[in-house]
Amino acid sequence: MLRIAVIGAGRIGQVHARTIAAHPRAELALVCDPAQGAAKDLADLHGARSCQDVEEVFSDPAIDAVIVGSPTPLHIPHLLAAAKAGKAVLCEKPIALDMRDVEEARTDLDAVGVPVMFGFNRRFDPSFAAVHAAVEAGRIGDLEQLTIISRDPAAPPLEYVKVSGGIFRDMTIHDFDTARFFLGDIIEVHAVGQNLDPAIEEAGDFDAAVVTLRAASGAVATIINNRHCASGYDQRLEASGRDGALLAENIRPTTVRLSNAEITDAQEPYLDFFLERYADAYRLELSAFIEAVEEGTTPPTSIADAIEALRLAEAATESARSGRPVRLG
Amino acid sequence: MLRIAVIGAGRIGQVHARTIAAHPRAELALVCDPAQGAAKDLADLHGARSCQDVEEVFSDPAIDAVIVGSPTPLHIPHLLAAAKAGKAVLCEKPIALDMRDVEEARTDLDAVGVPVMFGFNRRFDPSFAAVHAAVEAGRIGDLEQLTIISRDPAAPPLEYVKVSGGIFRDMTIHDFDTARFFLGDIIEVHAVGQNLDPAIEEAGDFDAAVVTLRAASGAVATIINNRHCASGYDQRLEASGRDGALLAENIRPTTVRLSNAEITDAQEPYLDFFLERYADAYRLELSAFIEAVEEGTTPPTSIADAIEALRLAEAATESARSGRPVRLG
Amino acid sequence: MLRIAVIGAGRIGQVHARTIAAHPRAELALVCDPAQGAAKDLADLHGARSCQDVEEVFSDPAIDAVIVGSPTPLHIPHLLAAAKAGKAVLCEKPIALDMRDVEEARTDLDAVGVPVMFGFNRRFDPSFAAVHAAVEAGRIGDLEQLTIISRDPAAPPLEYVKVSGGIFRDMTIHDFDTARFFLGDIIEVHAVGQNLDPAIEEAGDFDAAVVTLRAASGAVATIINNRHCASGYDQRLEASGRDGALLAENIRPTTVRLSNAEITDAQEPYLDFFLERYADAYRLELSAFIEAVEEGTTPPTSIADAIEALRLAEAATESARSGRPVRLG
Amino acid sequence: MLRIAVIGAGRIGQVHARTIAAHPRAELALVCDPAQGAAKDLADLHGARSCQDVEEVFSDPAIDAVIVGSPTPLHIPHLLAAAKAGKAVLCEKPIALDMRDVEEARTDLDAVGVPVMFGFNRRFDPSFAAVHAAVEAGRIGDLEQLTIISRDPAAPPLEYVKVSGGIFRDMTIHDFDTARFFLGDIIEVHAVGQNLDPAIEEAGDFDAAVVTLRAASGAVATIINNRHCASGYDQRLEASGRDGALLAENIRPTTVRLSNAEITDAQEPYLDFFLERYADAYRLELSAFIEAVEEGTTPPTSIADAIEALRLAEAATESARSGRPVRLG
Repeated sequence: MLRIAVIGAGRIGQVHARTIAAHPRAELALVCDPAQGAAKDLADLHGARSCQDVEEVFSDPAIDAVIVGSPTPLHIPHLLAAAKAGKAVLCEKPIALDMRDVEEARTDLDAVGVPVMFGFNRRFDPSFAAVHAAVEAGRIGDLEQLTIISRDPAAPPLEYVKVSGGIFRDMTIHDFDTARFFLGDIIEVHAVGQNLDPAIEEAGDFDAAVVTLRAASGAVATIINNRHCASGYDQRLEASGRDGALLAENIRPTTVRLSNAEITDAQEPYLDFFLERYADAYRLELSAFIEAVEEGTTPPTSIADAIEALRLAEAATESARSGRPVRLG
Repeated sequence: MLRIAVIGAGRIGQVHARTIAAHPRAELALVCDPAQGAAKDLADLHGARSCQDVEEVFSDPAIDAVIVGSPTPLHIPHLLAAAKAGKAVLCEKPIALDMRDVEEARTDLDAVGVPVMFGFNRRFDPSFAAVHAAVEAGRIGDLEQLTIISRDPAAPPLEYVKVSGGIFRDMTIHDFDTARFFLGDIIEVHAVGQNLDPAIEEAGDFDAAVVTLRAASGAVATIINNRHCASGYDQRLEASGRDGALLAENIRPTTVRLSNAEITDAQEPYLDFFLERYADAYRLELSAFIEAVEEGTTPPTSIADAIEALRLAEAATESARSGRPVRLG
Repeated sequence: MLRIAVIGAGRIGQVHARTIAAHPRAELALVCDPAQGAAKDLADLHGARSCQDVEEVFSDPAIDAVIVGSPTPLHIPHLLAAAKAGKAVLCEKPIALDMRDVEEARTDLDAVGVPVMFGFNRRFDPSFAAVHAAVEAGRIGDLEQLTIISRDPAAPPLEYVKVSGGIFRDMTIHDFDTARFFLGDIIEVHAVGQNLDPAIEEAGDFDAAVVTLRAASGAVATIINNRHCASGYDQRLEASGRDGALLAENIRPTTVRLSNAEITDAQEPYLDFFLERYADAYRLELSAFIEAVEEGTTPPTSIADAIEALRLAEAATESARSGRPVRLG
Repeated sequence: MLRIAVIGAGRIGQVHARTIAAHPRAELALVCDPAQGAAKDLADLHGARSCQDVEEVFSDPAIDAVIVGSPTPLHIPHLLAAAKAGKAVLCEKPIALDMRDVEEARTDLDAVGVPVMFGFNRRFDPSFAAVHAAVEAGRIGDLEQLTIISRDPAAPPLEYVKVSGGIFRDMTIHDFDTARFFLGDIIEVHAVGQNLDPAIEEAGDFDAAVVTLRAASGAVATIINNRHCASGYDQRLEASGRDGALLAENIRPTTVRLSNAEITDAQEPYLDFFLERYADAYRLELSAFIEAVEEGTTPPTSIADAIEALRLAEAATESARSGRPVRLG
């Protein structure tokens, strides 16, 4: 039974708390958030303790592992403090908003040597993982083109947009990791940012984008993002290879199809957002983390993955602003 | 170039006239209908001659073949007269409304020896034919259960219902032939008639039905019929075997799918009725007829098929009325 | 927290034990099975106590509710004993194999007055339930034809077949309940039994069947059963009404589709069997049971439902043997 | 009856000849090709005359209209000569390989004033046209992102590749026109070329590409091309708007779906190539051309469309070579 503390009682912290509570080999021991009410409410919901000061998390001997779900600027400090305290860490994405903050952390972490994993949940989604496994098994021959469609149901509040680091660091970061998961090293990034919603433009961000990634292998990935989608959380992926193609389709609450005089075989809107859509992925991500901690193996995602995804986000940001592709070393 | 006369300028005659006109190896030479206007209009549309008296068809040396699309009670007289005049014949379904009229015709036809084929168009539908070919090729192992769903977009006029011979002889007859096409000899028929529309009930007919057919092979076919379907002409077939299953889905005008806040991947209603839905089938049926005539081979459907389908329709009618299954000799 | 005992540590008992263990408002307190090892193993898996004698269940004051998953002949005795001991009961289907055993139980139960619910899990399947809700809401107008396709991946062991009460009481019983759920009172049953596997025929049972049910409303339900299906557990339902139709499709482990030179958009086989396919249904069934117990409301399925489903199974058995439809009073 | 001559008896000339022959209001009068055998064979197939010298086409008073299907460098000379001879012209894509050749032609054509149309067949595909009509009707709100997937079944012969003008002028040109059809003016083009097949790389061309187009409206189109696709001719389009999305799916020969122990609901490979896939589009394109000629209306595609598509192809070629986006004036 892994005793886990969750730092951050916001949306993502709630997801993790619930996943831990339902996991047969994990126990939600502690919830930490500077907002006392939020920490207590979430802790009470699952019968855990709560605290407001992160130091209590790091110094608590009854905590085996920490999930870092604090605001992004605190990811590195919390991650390092937990690791130095000997706790295993599962850290949310993105690792940071600026690459300059990251390299030092990497050196520090290497020195500590506890298991540290990063929350790229798409890798654990059963459908995406099945496509990846089939590609790796050679089912479609050499992978030539990867298409990722990722649209949120609705934009986050403007206050969040302003501190998010921008669409590429906040939203596309998952798709960058997915592209790397399938294609390995990326050598060139081109991004077209779109401003469909004037309020988001005023906040200094794009609310839609198309990103093209050229891989060292010669394959090309296309990422199509939008902060808004009428039909729900649109999450699809198509891997096209020399000998075939694999498509991961959207997920609906049921398999029901309606036909009438206007339409036939109409399905329901997609599951609304990441909590529902990636519920299985969060569960399997946690299992992978627990397994790595228990068995002392290397977790499936590393700080190198977090750094590379951030590097792609920075390159896309630069490309979308300058209008030019960015080559990576 | 096969010179063809069409007897009957009604709905089915129009289908055949159009199919002949578009066929590279057939010529629509003559249209015959007692209603002068109807005959002339249809003939003019395709640049053919017209007449009102069927005797002109049979005695015309410039006619190689005749398509009998007259009202059902005239099928046997027209079929026999054409055959005796040495014309190849493609006769519409059902051959007759009463089995007592048929056996004599069979003997007469056997004596004449011209190619005679019956219009069971489902056998020539590309999707149904592909399922049949795959079953015959052993793709799904022994066929165990066949499900035929066949619903018309809307009931025919009451005047037609009254002289149609009833739903089983008029509508289900196609599905009976399909069942025989897949399963061979049928040894037991059970039919449940439904009266959803009181006007059709008053006219003495059912407007929906579920028929179960037990084949000598041990397989069972289920036919689900309805004279009405909100989404159009619902024509599906599923063959389920020991090692797999084959489904022929409905056909829409385009492949477009609509998604919005209420529905996702909604397709269009089905093609509206037999003219559109079975356009390819009529074309391929005509090709098979022409090929048999030109090459002197046996046409793919025979009077025996027409008789057996009628026998099943009679058995279903009896079963639906008596409430008991009917065993066939 | 409802403290629940499970009687029977077989396949269905294991399903319920797991569902209880994962349920936030239920606790698996006790597992009872005459086979000591089976009881203990299942209990240990979920941290519960075990016993071999059912009397210990009934007399245990720490038990609030009992799930009866014993062999069918013991359903009524266990159900009655638990109810008389004041426990709420969720009883598996079928209630019994013979109608003569049932009426007395009904009288006894009425006298006791504890909440008693029967395990017709299809009613709680999210897709089937969504179709039902949409039909009730009038989305497709008057329901005219209901088609239920229900095929198991593989036949149970012959030993089980011999004591199962036959395919209609053991397997179709779920579909009978589904038909009643959608159509209400059934007035006529016709069943065609199939013997595809000689071993099952020797055991005195059918291994496939097509059943037609006529409802008092004029609607007709068709049930297509097979003990074997190459592609997995084939569980579909189509409700066809005056203004439209609703289809509940099969469920696969992922949404992945494969295309190559031979096939396109191929999906995975269906979830293998009831444990996976109806995992959500068992969870929601348990929730409905707990809610009824906690709030003192009438459970959504009653002994009347269990009796009516059994009556349909008996009628189908008679019809399949006699070759005649059976009318219900 | 429009009397039409076809210049060029190659692959595309054969498509047009067949379409004309089957069209009720068109007559294939003449086939012209410098290769005598090719011209005669195609003409004989449809009962037309043939010639080897294009001057015979232009001077023939029995010809009302000309379809220019000659090699691309001859498009402008043939187009101009036919127009100056007073023939209506339907010219194949691309209008030329180099923009410098085109502007003069435009001036000349404007002076002549006969109906001239360009063969952008995608606009006439029933599914693509239905999506376009629905977008124009406001069914999905403001169009935000357009995704075009266009993959050929197999690369053309190297000899063809060498004179094709490159993938963007030869293959993507259709998709550029489709993008303009949906989005109007394009202001920026970015193209990533891929070299998957070394032989095509040696021939100086790309065999796959991803192109991003930014429209003046703020919408972005993504075109994903590949000269090879294992499953056939992959032709899809998705228009995503503020209030919904419209998808045009691939087309298969039948609607059959196969399920077995490995796969479920597997469909057939896509129709193999443009002749089959766009048969309806060629027919409707010809109808639109005939209608414009007969009624004296402006044809739906103009030389301006041909020029703009070529401009996008030139920009994409430059972008793919330089690695930089190209802005359009």
